[in-house]
Amino acid sequence: MICAADAWGIGSHGLIRLPYYLTRITAGGISASAELVAEKSMTTLQVLNGQNGLGHWQLWQAASTAAEIAQIHGSSAVAVRSSSHAGALGLFTWPGIKRDCLTFLFSNAPAVMPAWGGSTPLLSTSPLAIGVPGMPTQLIIDLATSAVARGKIAAKAKIGEPIPAGWALDREGNPTTDAQSALMGMLAPLGGAKGFALAMAVETLTGGLVGPHLAKGMPDMFNPEDNSRPQQISHFVISVNAAFIDDSQYQRISELQNNVINSGSRVPGASKLHPLELSGDIELNLTNEVIDEIDAWREKLS
Amino acid sequence: MICAADAWGIGSHGLIRLPYYLTRITAGGISASAELVAEKSMTTLQVLNGQNGLGHWQLWQAASTAAEIAQIHGSSAVAVRSSSHAGALGLFTWPGIKRDCLTFLFSNAPAVMPAWGGSTPLLSTSPLAIGVPGMPTQLIIDLATSAVARGKIAAKAKIGEPIPAGWALDREGNPTTDAQSALMGMLAPLGGAKGFALAMAVETLTGGLVGPHLAKGMPDMFNPEDNSRPQQISHFVISVNAAFIDDSQYQRISELQNNVINSGSRVPGASKLHPLELSGDIELNLTNEVIDEIDAWREKLS
Repeated sequence: MICAADAWGIGSHGLIRLPYYLTRITAGGISASAELVAEKSMTTLQVLNGQNGLGHWQLWQAASTAAEIAQIHGSSAVAVRSSSHAGALGLFTWPGIKRDCLTFLFSNAPAVMPAWGGSTPLLSTSPLAIGVPGMPTQLIIDLATSAVARGKIAAKAKIGEPIPAGWALDREGNPTTDAQSALMGMLAPLGGAKGFALAMAVETLTGGLVGPHLAKGMPDMFNPEDNSRPQQISHFVISVNAAFIDDSQYQRISELQNNVINSGSRVPGASKLHPLELSGDIELNLTNEVIDEIDAWREKLS
Repeated sequence: MICAADAWGIGSHGLIRLPYYLTRITAGGISASAELVAEKSMTTLQVLNGQNGLGHWQLWQAASTAAEIAQIHGSSAVAVRSSSHAGALGLFTWPGIKRDCLTFLFSNAPAVMPAWGGSTPLLSTSPLAIGVPGMPTQLIIDLATSAVARGKIAAKAKIGEPIPAGWALDREGNPTTDAQSALMGMLAPLGGAKGFALAMAVETLTGGLVGPHLAKGMPDMFNPEDNSRPQQISHFVISVNAAFIDDSQYQRISELQNNVINSGSRVPGASKLHPLELSGDIELNLTNEVIDEIDAWREKLS
């Protein structure tokens, strides 16, 4: 799953993060023995508790459960509380795509972005993802509602490069091109007020409705002092049985996708393969620094 | 419902549109006798046919049905095909808010925006809205995934004013500040590739999955030649029982809203009252031109 992010070209959410996850597991911030347990449920709504386990397998399982319920009943929602960072959110549209279901995913994380017009970080990058089964190509959209994802800044910091102007603000709210200052500061919302509105919705649906924590005050994966503190991230999944709706949808979506390609653009997610269907000869683009860190961990854990 | 858009400050979707609706009803493009009939259903998924009726009452009814199902079963999805323009999408979060349910709304319309990097209009403004019950204040986000809503350009055209740079492209894809050229041309997606991704998802969920039409080729409310042609717009509603998820959500969302207000920002939708709870002494901001047109229709229909 983590390698898939690299294969998808989302290096900021790939193996570069593995040392952070391993450090947090070793320090107790992520529980390796966690289970995903049902706290309460209605016919098509489940609330799960992740017991501070790794987000990747928990969100994959939650999205699979959501799709299975939607196949039977038409729709579903699954909330996961007390989980951890799950990496590239778009990955978790695949359990739905494989079952001819739509998937809507929302997740929270530490606050790195102010409200529109505000000067205090209150919102995470507030990512959302939407997946539609292949007709003929799967549609996967996966975006932070900030101008850029925080992981992109972390990747720049890792290789010691500056960030472009417009991506972020420093701790005092001033524009900065220094990746480290940006990591300690705040991101700007996508397109101003609209990005803030989307981020506010994502934070309300995750930290607010599901909990147990808002983005503000959440332990930070990139802050070594927080390594032993569980992040208690919340995820929210909605699934809908897409195939049931109409017999002509394949034809129309295929026409839409062809129109997009013929106009000189591309279908978002068309190249984002299922994590288990990545062939062994896909080349991952890793820096020497990341490879060295992973090698060091391999020795450490023998 | 139409007055509520004016009361919400969304003049572009308010009474300014009434003459267009009346013209289309008279010409046959909107059916005044349409019913909203169920075509097929699963426990928590309904597909309705609007028979070319007015979108306002049809989407209100669809959102009410969605919330009622979600109250019982936890979640729901309702697709409406062959409907018409429904005005300000955020209005239709109120049936859910009143029933302690989340509402997600998507709608399509004539193509006015190219794919990212493309030069042909393929996507509508691809609006989406999300509503969360009041904890303590309702959250209503309602946005076009274009840089601006087409209605804002129509409002400028109506009063003969130019539009700001960056809102739109002319028919050939060149930037323009002329509102009429922009209405005949294309809009730019919100924040570039991310706005396109969102718009592509909205179009896939509405015109693609539900149909019967893609945005491309859809009859245009602002083109007199199209007055007798039904638009056959599609709407897609998802609802989730919010109150069931967690007992502490009111407390957390209230804290989030207070943090947003105290940081100098505001809660999106806080001032957007329920259409039936607008008091009689709210002043609507209408131009003389709109008042004259409505007066002319009043005489015509006596």
